[in-house]
Amino acid sequence: MCRFTLYLGPPVRLSTLLTEPQHSLIRQSYESEERSEPLNGDGFGIGWYAPRIWHEPALFHQITPAWNNRSLQSIAKVVCSPCIMAHVRAATPGSDVNLANCHPFGYGGYLLMHNGHVGGFRKIRRRLLESLSDEAFNIPRGSTDTEHLFAVFVDELLRHGCPVDPGAEGASGLGALELARRLSAAITRVLLLSKELGGGESSVLNVAVADGSHVAVSRFDSDPEEQPESLYLYHGELYEPAGRRFPERRKDDEGEAMVVASERLTGDPRWMAVPPDSMLVLDRRAPPRVLPMDDLGRVVDA
Amino acid sequence: MCRFTLYLGPPVRLSTLLTEPQHSLIRQSYESEERSEPLNGDGFGIGWYAPRIWHEPALFHQITPAWNNRSLQSIAKVVCSPCIMAHVRAATPGSDVNLANCHPFGYGGYLLMHNGHVGGFRKIRRRLLESLSDEAFNIPRGSTDTEHLFAVFVDELLRHGCPVDPGAEGASGLGALELARRLSAAITRVLLLSKELGGGESSVLNVAVADGSHVAVSRFDSDPEEQPESLYLYHGELYEPAGRRFPERRKDDEGEAMVVASERLTGDPRWMAVPPDSMLVLDRRAPPRVLPMDDLGRVVDA
Amino acid sequence: MCRFTLYLGPPVRLSTLLTEPQHSLIRQSYESEERSEPLNGDGFGIGWYAPRIWHEPALFHQITPAWNNRSLQSIAKVVCSPCIMAHVRAATPGSDVNLANCHPFGYGGYLLMHNGHVGGFRKIRRRLLESLSDEAFNIPRGSTDTEHLFAVFVDELLRHGCPVDPGAEGASGLGALELARRLSAAITRVLLLSKELGGGESSVLNVAVADGSHVAVSRFDSDPEEQPESLYLYHGELYEPAGRRFPERRKDDEGEAMVVASERLTGDPRWMAVPPDSMLVLDRRAPPRVLPMDDLGRVVDA
Amino acid sequence: MCRFTLYLGPPVRLSTLLTEPQHSLIRQSYESEERSEPLNGDGFGIGWYAPRIWHEPALFHQITPAWNNRSLQSIAKVVCSPCIMAHVRAATPGSDVNLANCHPFGYGGYLLMHNGHVGGFRKIRRRLLESLSDEAFNIPRGSTDTEHLFAVFVDELLRHGCPVDPGAEGASGLGALELARRLSAAITRVLLLSKELGGGESSVLNVAVADGSHVAVSRFDSDPEEQPESLYLYHGELYEPAGRRFPERRKDDEGEAMVVASERLTGDPRWMAVPPDSMLVLDRRAPPRVLPMDDLGRVVDA
Repeated sequence: MCRFTLYLGPPVRLSTLLTEPQHSLIRQSYESEERSEPLNGDGFGIGWYAPRIWHEPALFHQITPAWNNRSLQSIAKVVCSPCIMAHVRAATPGSDVNLANCHPFGYGGYLLMHNGHVGGFRKIRRRLLESLSDEAFNIPRGSTDTEHLFAVFVDELLRHGCPVDPGAEGASGLGALELARRLSAAITRVLLLSKELGGGESSVLNVAVADGSHVAVSRFDSDPEEQPESLYLYHGELYEPAGRRFPERRKDDEGEAMVVASERLTGDPRWMAVPPDSMLVLDRRAPPRVLPMDDLGRVVDA
Repeated sequence: MCRFTLYLGPPVRLSTLLTEPQHSLIRQSYESEERSEPLNGDGFGIGWYAPRIWHEPALFHQITPAWNNRSLQSIAKVVCSPCIMAHVRAATPGSDVNLANCHPFGYGGYLLMHNGHVGGFRKIRRRLLESLSDEAFNIPRGSTDTEHLFAVFVDELLRHGCPVDPGAEGASGLGALELARRLSAAITRVLLLSKELGGGESSVLNVAVADGSHVAVSRFDSDPEEQPESLYLYHGELYEPAGRRFPERRKDDEGEAMVVASERLTGDPRWMAVPPDSMLVLDRRAPPRVLPMDDLGRVVDA
Repeated sequence: MCRFTLYLGPPVRLSTLLTEPQHSLIRQSYESEERSEPLNGDGFGIGWYAPRIWHEPALFHQITPAWNNRSLQSIAKVVCSPCIMAHVRAATPGSDVNLANCHPFGYGGYLLMHNGHVGGFRKIRRRLLESLSDEAFNIPRGSTDTEHLFAVFVDELLRHGCPVDPGAEGASGLGALELARRLSAAITRVLLLSKELGGGESSVLNVAVADGSHVAVSRFDSDPEEQPESLYLYHGELYEPAGRRFPERRKDDEGEAMVVASERLTGDPRWMAVPPDSMLVLDRRAPPRVLPMDDLGRVVDA
Repeated sequence: MCRFTLYLGPPVRLSTLLTEPQHSLIRQSYESEERSEPLNGDGFGIGWYAPRIWHEPALFHQITPAWNNRSLQSIAKVVCSPCIMAHVRAATPGSDVNLANCHPFGYGGYLLMHNGHVGGFRKIRRRLLESLSDEAFNIPRGSTDTEHLFAVFVDELLRHGCPVDPGAEGASGLGALELARRLSAAITRVLLLSKELGGGESSVLNVAVADGSHVAVSRFDSDPEEQPESLYLYHGELYEPAGRRFPERRKDDEGEAMVVASERLTGDPRWMAVPPDSMLVLDRRAPPRVLPMDDLGRVVDA
């Protein structure tokens, strides 16, 4: 499994997610509380957007554990961003720990990360690859299920003519709802293959995607008897767990803060559990929405 | 490109290839002489057989350069083997430096390593994968040309019912000539795809395979106007570049020593250039043979 | 803290300690049972002797966790040795995770590894370094307590004119008892400094040293109210946890097997707890001895 | 040896030093032109200041080569800074490649990096450490000459009551000239020891220090017969090698740009060689000054 967190709102330092909170993501890398196995030490990754500087997000990946990485701790203090994704990995037994496998995965202006697994992945991988356009076919650089799920997501973007680089000057992004639909469509394609060829294994698909201004996150388990992996949302005026000196604000940095995390980062009572089998839709200029997902991952009334 | 070396003969310490010779493989990692670009610093790998201990070879891969690796220097002094492969990598620009991409690649009792590239690899990759059995399809864990060439080689072994584990008790190996034929067949399959879809790019295929008792190595460039990458053979009574204390010999450790290397490891006049477009066939119990290869990589009169 | 294991006896594959037992050292790297914190993921190291091949032991160190290292798993299957040390590290908070800090530490033919900490190390480090000969002064390459303890141990060897390279041809080693005395003397020097300047912090000193033929291991806590870290000894005819194909034996490979480990590797009832505040003295040609240590780490009636 | 570059001026993206210029620092990592040995592949490090966000600089260190690091390439595009240091390392033979050894080194708000070596370092190390305050004594985490030179520099800062955190709110920094004097004093201390105990080996000391607003850089060789390592200064209105989209400017981001580099990053004729045996003194609010250094590294008429 894995743990992840993401942020959308006025720029904050990476450390407000990664190191400062009492139950920060780095703490979850060695002492997560809502998984049977508390360890997420098989590498980590951070993606962040700096829309005034560059149209693509930065990606910082390492195959060493997050908890002892001095560069991570140092960078987290001086980098501010309005849209952040961070992930600590627990590799499935037998699967590789390579830089190519570290989440989040990036394509143009999009990021994706995942906590869970695709049921019967080895059995569906060949058919899944066959279904992809040539462009998407070349996306997986390693052999994990998430890389292939990401390729399906990009395939969905390309099929629908979505802009590859929504942050580029003059480009107009998808909108949060459209982003959620593309993620949902990718999930459905994977689930249909898994049902057909996956030998009855269920899928766990807590998946987050972003384009810098919008975010969609699913909390989903294909087995109706099972609770999905945990997922929480914080939504409030300002997310500032440690009260340290804050970066200077500009007019356009206003707005509410939204944080999503596998486990609550702080003891703040405003953290809410995301309902099982649903998709969060986040837009910096609107309140969060929750869309129910059906048993094939389709967002029902979007 | 890359540099590699291999050994077949009475057990020697890894250091006799890697560190002791004047122009050792480690020296070739930062100062190779027969490439325009002298640097091979994108990770390394060693594979070695210990037939009295285990039926599969050991694989030691690192993504850091060979020249500053203390573990490599230390292990090289205390490990002896009758069949060794070692490789220092220069990643193609844009290609990953991951553990999954480090040569040599292993499957059961077989090893393969490569110096060169497959012409138009990105364009043929999809068709190449389609041609594989399910077992071989799952072999590439990363995205490089050599991993896919290796999958084709394993596909050839499986198609011909070759034993997966030729070193296992009771198993009888292929024989050196049969090993060379399987490598040749894999090369031909790749070249045919490259000619059809590769957009005219030529292939450079210095490829070595081993099963612990036998070795086949090609020196090949699909462009008839070009010299293939350099390749040399040493064949003699005893290969002992530095004259240091040698491991104790047993009766069955006798026989002649054969060393193959991208660049001569020592100034010894017995190093001979392998003829262009040909395949070396090595067997511990016979003198080395050289088979000419035609323009599709077929060994002509084997 | 950390976990470690060591072996002395007829040659066995590294895997018999590292991967095959039910509660192998690799399992202890993520799920140790006798520490409050189960995680030992800050790098690992293996040292092993190959006396017929080279007079110094091999050292294989990595800063990534042991549990996902493919090279480690592969090497462990094909390497046999009569004297093995292996260590998985849990770095003290704030301390570095560097190759220079990985146990075991080597000097000539000696190895040392440690589970525990030196009380008030930062406060005594300067005085400790001042007490060393120039040769020993240059031994620590990093900044951890164990590196400095190792320098004191080497200082003790050099002061007493012990052979630096006991495995070299013609050299005669120390003998197990003498090795234990040198370790004890080093511990006493460190404890005296710690009592004087360490600000009352106690020391935990489960320390193992070896020269290839002999081993000494302490189980010690300087706080008389505390139990030292756990430590166990297995002593029996043959240590073979998984019953897999064993390397061929020679006449001189006979003798009993001794395994020491922070936590029992198997459910075998022959594992015995080492008594608190005592030193194990192991010699391939004699039964294990246990010497009590006084409150300054001195072996009492040796 | 090594190669380095630094920047002081209106905020630029890291990529304007690291990847965009024709002869960028990443290019110098594998193809430097003004050293006999072109390779600087033993790790790298970047330090950058973000004064509106945090009072200490970020440090990003890696032990893998700079040329194949995807995270470096990605981060370089989205991070802007008014004061940047970047270093690619060529470890002295026999010296470690550890994270602890990567330049630049940081203490509070200061950074230091070095191209060269301290003559007879092993012979003077003990005396050098003895001369340090307890605080500075604990600075070296590894065993290289530069870490010890950095400890002497910090010792000089502490002796003169310089603010540890010149970027913190309310703190007033040293001023560029004072920074240069502290560096000069540190160099002199090291040279005096080297002359006394170093066995006649000369020192090469291209050393850069920064506090976020000021920079001092020496170009120095203690052997009067030798040219120091190369060093160049660019000073101009705007440093923008690749003309790509630039981050938005604010009023206070104005001022001239200064770039210092071991080798010229571009073909621009404004690059000037720094005179041998002299110290550059850079302040964002004043033109660059060059102070001559005498044979003990003292800045003559400061």
